[in-house]
Amino acid sequence: MTAPRHTSGAPGGTPPVYLRAVGTALPGPPIDNAALAARFGFDAMWEQWIDAFIGTRTRHLATDLETGEQYATLAELAATAADRALAAADLTAAGIDALVLGTATPDQLMPATVNLVADRIGANELPAFQLQSGCCGAVQALDVARRLLLGGDHRTVLVLGGDVCAKYFDVTADLSKVPPAELVNVVLFGDAAGAAVLSTEPAPGALELRRVVNRLTGLGQAPGQVLEWFGPAQPRPERIGVSEDYKAIEQRVPDMASDVVAELLADLGWKPDDVDFLLPPQLSGRMTARIVARLGLPAAHEVSCVGETGNTGNALPFHQLERVLGRVEAGQRGVGIAVESSKWIKSGYAFEGV
Amino acid sequence: MTAPRHTSGAPGGTPPVYLRAVGTALPGPPIDNAALAARFGFDAMWEQWIDAFIGTRTRHLATDLETGEQYATLAELAATAADRALAAADLTAAGIDALVLGTATPDQLMPATVNLVADRIGANELPAFQLQSGCCGAVQALDVARRLLLGGDHRTVLVLGGDVCAKYFDVTADLSKVPPAELVNVVLFGDAAGAAVLSTEPAPGALELRRVVNRLTGLGQAPGQVLEWFGPAQPRPERIGVSEDYKAIEQRVPDMASDVVAELLADLGWKPDDVDFLLPPQLSGRMTARIVARLGLPAAHEVSCVGETGNTGNALPFHQLERVLGRVEAGQRGVGIAVESSKWIKSGYAFEGV
Repeated sequence: MTAPRHTSGAPGGTPPVYLRAVGTALPGPPIDNAALAARFGFDAMWEQWIDAFIGTRTRHLATDLETGEQYATLAELAATAADRALAAADLTAAGIDALVLGTATPDQLMPATVNLVADRIGANELPAFQLQSGCCGAVQALDVARRLLLGGDHRTVLVLGGDVCAKYFDVTADLSKVPPAELVNVVLFGDAAGAAVLSTEPAPGALELRRVVNRLTGLGQAPGQVLEWFGPAQPRPERIGVSEDYKAIEQRVPDMASDVVAELLADLGWKPDDVDFLLPPQLSGRMTARIVARLGLPAAHEVSCVGETGNTGNALPFHQLERVLGRVEAGQRGVGIAVESSKWIKSGYAFEGV
Repeated sequence: MTAPRHTSGAPGGTPPVYLRAVGTALPGPPIDNAALAARFGFDAMWEQWIDAFIGTRTRHLATDLETGEQYATLAELAATAADRALAAADLTAAGIDALVLGTATPDQLMPATVNLVADRIGANELPAFQLQSGCCGAVQALDVARRLLLGGDHRTVLVLGGDVCAKYFDVTADLSKVPPAELVNVVLFGDAAGAAVLSTEPAPGALELRRVVNRLTGLGQAPGQVLEWFGPAQPRPERIGVSEDYKAIEQRVPDMASDVVAELLADLGWKPDDVDFLLPPQLSGRMTARIVARLGLPAAHEVSCVGETGNTGNALPFHQLERVLGRVEAGQRGVGIAVESSKWIKSGYAFEGV
């Protein structure tokens, strides 16, 4: 907070971009570890193991674990989040110039889910982009939205992010035969969506989006997370549809998060103790704690949600931003980090109270 | 060619963006209608019907129709196209600042296919975006790439587009029982990828990318094309994985194409007879002919490829651009149009020889 305040995070003196409002949506009630343990026939030890080693206490799922019924699509959740963000910004869909959605789990391949969200919120005759990405998709969406605004031909962009992994839960399977690498997904992940209104016009309580970093960094590295999809013609294969390399993730993600923070601070001329709010990666409660300890931002207040929501993928940054919006005073600074282990992507953003 | 030449298609006097080189890739040999008829047990009448009413003579498929073997992924095709575009621009991957891929049919959901392309061409430590979209994805990728360049923090962006529909062909099925709505996909579509080098620096023979239009326009309209994907937990449903509403497509697409041309011309102050090259939508040979007749661009030379490639989705604009690059003289003008019937998206771009 001692460095001079820059008026723009963009090169060449382009105008500032403001984050004015955020909305989120979670499907169904919170599901705690005791409920998961009961459903899977696991004992109290397992429940305690989740608490201690994963650090996720509850999550929301778009699939009913008893019946297998999917009671929310990504389009539905994202539209609910969008309506909430628009209401918080005192806007209607008519006031939006473009939509940008980041997700790894679209409802269909075509139409892109962002177009179904547009239908639900009543948006039309505007550009609608959908970025296919894992945990970095929401930051990529912020990046694209910011560039749309900096281009001068858009004034207000609705950014969306979310994931619904319902298609990866087979609740009819004999869970005692499901390999641990698949079961852990039920523990780690949650379904959710979020939305944010970005604008070239400030508003009381808004955040200025100062900088966005988004960089692929996986050359020659095996993917740390894989999510397959299947067309109708393919026999259901023996390979697992979701897989993670947790060892590689544990090894690489903390360094990647540190790199993003270092880059944001260097770009903006901020010092580590200038950072008042830290929105760290949310793979699991335990991993988040390790990353935060490592980042070395002594004055930063940590803003995490993974304990209550699980890892909701591209919805996460919105859940975090929702928790800081309205609490950031003028001149206070924050950084948000998202790291994707699929093919190793570093991303993050920096903001400042106005 | 009589209107004064503008120096930029972007608002606010931002610098021009140039398309310097294009590369494409097609899997396997061309498959003609006689070969399709023989494979499906159809007669010569059917073959003639394709020639006359669809207007597609050959296509390339990433799946061997006899064995079902998939012998090319989207990542492989896109990397080949990328290598060709880079070679044509006399660049290596180290000279690229960002990647943007448009596709409806990624190889996997995670990692995004663009990241696998990066690995294959040796690109690293750069932003890599993947836009999920049907026939408008390539234009959306051009739009995002152009904005990256206009932002001033990137000088050269590799734009990619392509689709591989192999996951939608079940060559083991009893084809006599496949409904016509599915069989027509084999006739209409082809697999391919393309790439283009966009840069803020001009080069001999380059095109200036003057303007990009990209607008969702489907509020309240049923999707004209649907492409489902399935997670491992879902039983293979009775619903069709690919479906089109050809009646709606025939009714709406020509008007949508006209709208895009009108908007591009109005934005740039061009008159219809200023347009020297027209790169029209390529749903099928017959539909393209109807659209071209309707557009009213008397001086425009039509650049189509659908007869030889089939509808290759997000690869199409690159196949068309490959056919004009090097033939556009300084001051000559062209427009390219892509219309997506999924949830009805209008898109297009305008270029000018430098």
